[in-house]
Amino acid sequence: MTVKILSAALIARFVDIVGAAHAILRPEEQAGYLREWRDRYVGRTPVVLRPGSTDEVSRILALAHAERVGVVPQAGNTGLVGGQIPSAAGDEIILSVERMRAVRDVDAAGGTFVVEAGVTLADAQAAAEAVGMMFPLSLASEGSARIGGVLATNAGGTGVLAYGNARHLTLGLEAVLADGRVWQGLRRLKKDNTGYDLRDLLIGSEGTLGVITAAALRMVPRPAGQATAVVALARSEDALALFRRIETLAGSGLTAFEFWSAGVQDFALAYGAGVRAPIRGSHPWYALIEFSSGCADGRAMGQLAGLLQAASDDGIVQDAVIAQSGQQARDFWKLRESFSEAQKGAGGSIKHDISVPVARIPEFLERAGRIVEQVCAGARPVPFGHFGDGNIHYNVSQPVGMDKAAFLAFWETMSEAVHALVTDMDGSISAEHGIGQMKREALVRAKSDVEIEMMRAIKQALDPRGILNPGKVL
Amino acid sequence: MTVKILSAALIARFVDIVGAAHAILRPEEQAGYLREWRDRYVGRTPVVLRPGSTDEVSRILALAHAERVGVVPQAGNTGLVGGQIPSAAGDEIILSVERMRAVRDVDAAGGTFVVEAGVTLADAQAAAEAVGMMFPLSLASEGSARIGGVLATNAGGTGVLAYGNARHLTLGLEAVLADGRVWQGLRRLKKDNTGYDLRDLLIGSEGTLGVITAAALRMVPRPAGQATAVVALARSEDALALFRRIETLAGSGLTAFEFWSAGVQDFALAYGAGVRAPIRGSHPWYALIEFSSGCADGRAMGQLAGLLQAASDDGIVQDAVIAQSGQQARDFWKLRESFSEAQKGAGGSIKHDISVPVARIPEFLERAGRIVEQVCAGARPVPFGHFGDGNIHYNVSQPVGMDKAAFLAFWETMSEAVHALVTDMDGSISAEHGIGQMKREALVRAKSDVEIEMMRAIKQALDPRGILNPGKVL
Repeated sequence: MTVKILSAALIARFVDIVGAAHAILRPEEQAGYLREWRDRYVGRTPVVLRPGSTDEVSRILALAHAERVGVVPQAGNTGLVGGQIPSAAGDEIILSVERMRAVRDVDAAGGTFVVEAGVTLADAQAAAEAVGMMFPLSLASEGSARIGGVLATNAGGTGVLAYGNARHLTLGLEAVLADGRVWQGLRRLKKDNTGYDLRDLLIGSEGTLGVITAAALRMVPRPAGQATAVVALARSEDALALFRRIETLAGSGLTAFEFWSAGVQDFALAYGAGVRAPIRGSHPWYALIEFSSGCADGRAMGQLAGLLQAASDDGIVQDAVIAQSGQQARDFWKLRESFSEAQKGAGGSIKHDISVPVARIPEFLERAGRIVEQVCAGARPVPFGHFGDGNIHYNVSQPVGMDKAAFLAFWETMSEAVHALVTDMDGSISAEHGIGQMKREALVRAKSDVEIEMMRAIKQALDPRGILNPGKVL
Repeated sequence: MTVKILSAALIARFVDIVGAAHAILRPEEQAGYLREWRDRYVGRTPVVLRPGSTDEVSRILALAHAERVGVVPQAGNTGLVGGQIPSAAGDEIILSVERMRAVRDVDAAGGTFVVEAGVTLADAQAAAEAVGMMFPLSLASEGSARIGGVLATNAGGTGVLAYGNARHLTLGLEAVLADGRVWQGLRRLKKDNTGYDLRDLLIGSEGTLGVITAAALRMVPRPAGQATAVVALARSEDALALFRRIETLAGSGLTAFEFWSAGVQDFALAYGAGVRAPIRGSHPWYALIEFSSGCADGRAMGQLAGLLQAASDDGIVQDAVIAQSGQQARDFWKLRESFSEAQKGAGGSIKHDISVPVARIPEFLERAGRIVEQVCAGARPVPFGHFGDGNIHYNVSQPVGMDKAAFLAFWETMSEAVHALVTDMDGSISAEHGIGQMKREALVRAKSDVEIEMMRAIKQALDPRGILNPGKVL
């Protein structure tokens, strides 16, 4: 693609579409849009446009297409792979959907609702709760993450085990194509076999095939009863055995099976705010287990207690505690959600967001540990994540006392080695965070030429001038 | 696209790829491949090729691409919209995957298995059952339908309410592209956000974007306990009220909510083989409800009994019977599965496979009934289907005593009117059967120009010469 440096006259035409009040030209006011929260990616832009309607998004893209200007869509700016950050060249405009915050329609009887791209995930959850239902997608950043980004990256989180990714909770989309045409696909149907699955093509395409402006989402009934426990485990193999056992008995009643290492819990206790250890003493591994039941009585808790007692009798579980109150359950989750942030206290951290077949997680942890030690002796793997989905955030903290920058210099080498292992194990180098800028080269290494060619052909078909989120994914 | 009549020399080159023993040239031996079971579509072909491997499929498509020959992929030939039938011009070859029947790998611990495109749905179910798990996709034609076609059409069936369509049970694909390149996408991951969702793009594309040769599928734990009931209802509104109530209380424990009219049950009793009425007397509507539970005890049955008693006390349910044995439950299902076939006994039938938002089903039934009467006075709507998915098979039998051909002459007029209503109600003109040949024009009427253009751009990108299943979908 060819991008030209924007003239003042052209910038003015973009500004006219949204109005001066909603265009940010001054660099000091742009800072919040140019920087990813871990400061790993920083870009530049001549203007941040904040359209208030799908029509304005359409006019922005029509102009960008005509003038061959790169457009970087941005929602909550909580992405972890730089997908929402423009290049440092300063020739791409940012299209922020943050002003498009309408909850257009809530159909409690139909179990669906329509929200615009700028609605935060927390507000979407609240809209469902307001009618006694639940929108089960949940992430640590849900207070800031916005639906447009959540869908563009097919976000995952802690509810995937029972309810699926963002993809599985989306019935229809409204999106603006590269040339400004509006695709009106806001369907609310559970079954619709009329042509190609454009919805799932756009979901997870990270703003490179179109700009999602609204979505029709599924709500689910709120579980009447819930039980939450944290268990201590001697070996990751025990986590697998416990997961299998519970999955078979509880089926879809098992709504979460999170997993973490002693190391990351120690960081959370040392550097996290207001978190405490659910279980006394030190154990190599922990899991958070959540059961849901359609019955308001203590069935979920009774079932969970029985399972954990049996697992303990069989030596699978070292110790376990079941939350006796909603507050205690929230505390368990608060600990789990604190890990990403808390790691900062332990210095530099090299992060991986991988998945492997669930049954191979123990093997992965063992092999990855050896690789990390080879790359940087003394580095401390502190894995945690969504065990039941096979998704491990395989994060590695720097050796004690090492210089942070010196450790981070190992990032490429370590990631390449870990990703090679993942690929060898038929896993994914990005289970839920996406590709963005961070994993473009890794993607080419991990995928076959045929798959990359298929993606490029589709990109060419839907964005022939390559103006949508240039330099991302492909 | 340009297709030329095939020369004997070119046909011979195709035959060489699979070997003479696996190429069918004689028209009398081709009959089973040229005709859809309702005899609505009949085509011609110079040769039916029956490759035994992905490599042979690849070589067939590479040659077809080079020579610009149309290829019609076919699996079990159970499709209902003519997608698997070649044109009558006789210039398209049939590629049957029926010989590719390997169950490549079953990973019970991981809850996944890999099957080739020629494996029947029943054999796929058996492969899962052999390791104590379940493949929950179920259709009336499961004994003949094959995985390649099941995925190419994103088949639905009776398990969708709890387990989703074919799409939701598929983790990865192996497919051959239009030019013979093989896409190796047989992943088994629950989470994988690495680039565009090519899997879901191919699923449901009806063989127009690639030929699926194998799939990695999900297995689920077999429910330990199950309860099945048939209920009699006075009004379709009561079915909606009952469904809402059960969905809220049972959540994912509700694994089926089927629905049918008195009329179609009367046909089944009159013309079906070995079916009987579950409930005495005549009632306007019936529903089949299936509950599943992770507990082997009578919990599912107890819960269902309690729900139905309460619904009966509230006047929602006229009568109900809960299966007291596995055999009785199977009899309920046998009745439900007999409807399509049984209708033949009542003469001509005009069929629709539609979906609307679940909450609007009663409104749809009322409005559609008036439309049918306007188009053909005395015609008998006998709707049935998957109420919980909003998917109604809105079939209409001919007026008593009318000439069959005369009635079928109303097909286009009646379908256009019914589809216009569906579109007006934000529904789908093909909930689970797909587009094929039957609904190509209807698709253009039902979709926006933008959506059709997007589909055409993708088709052009992945099959620039238009050799894959020409004249289908688009």
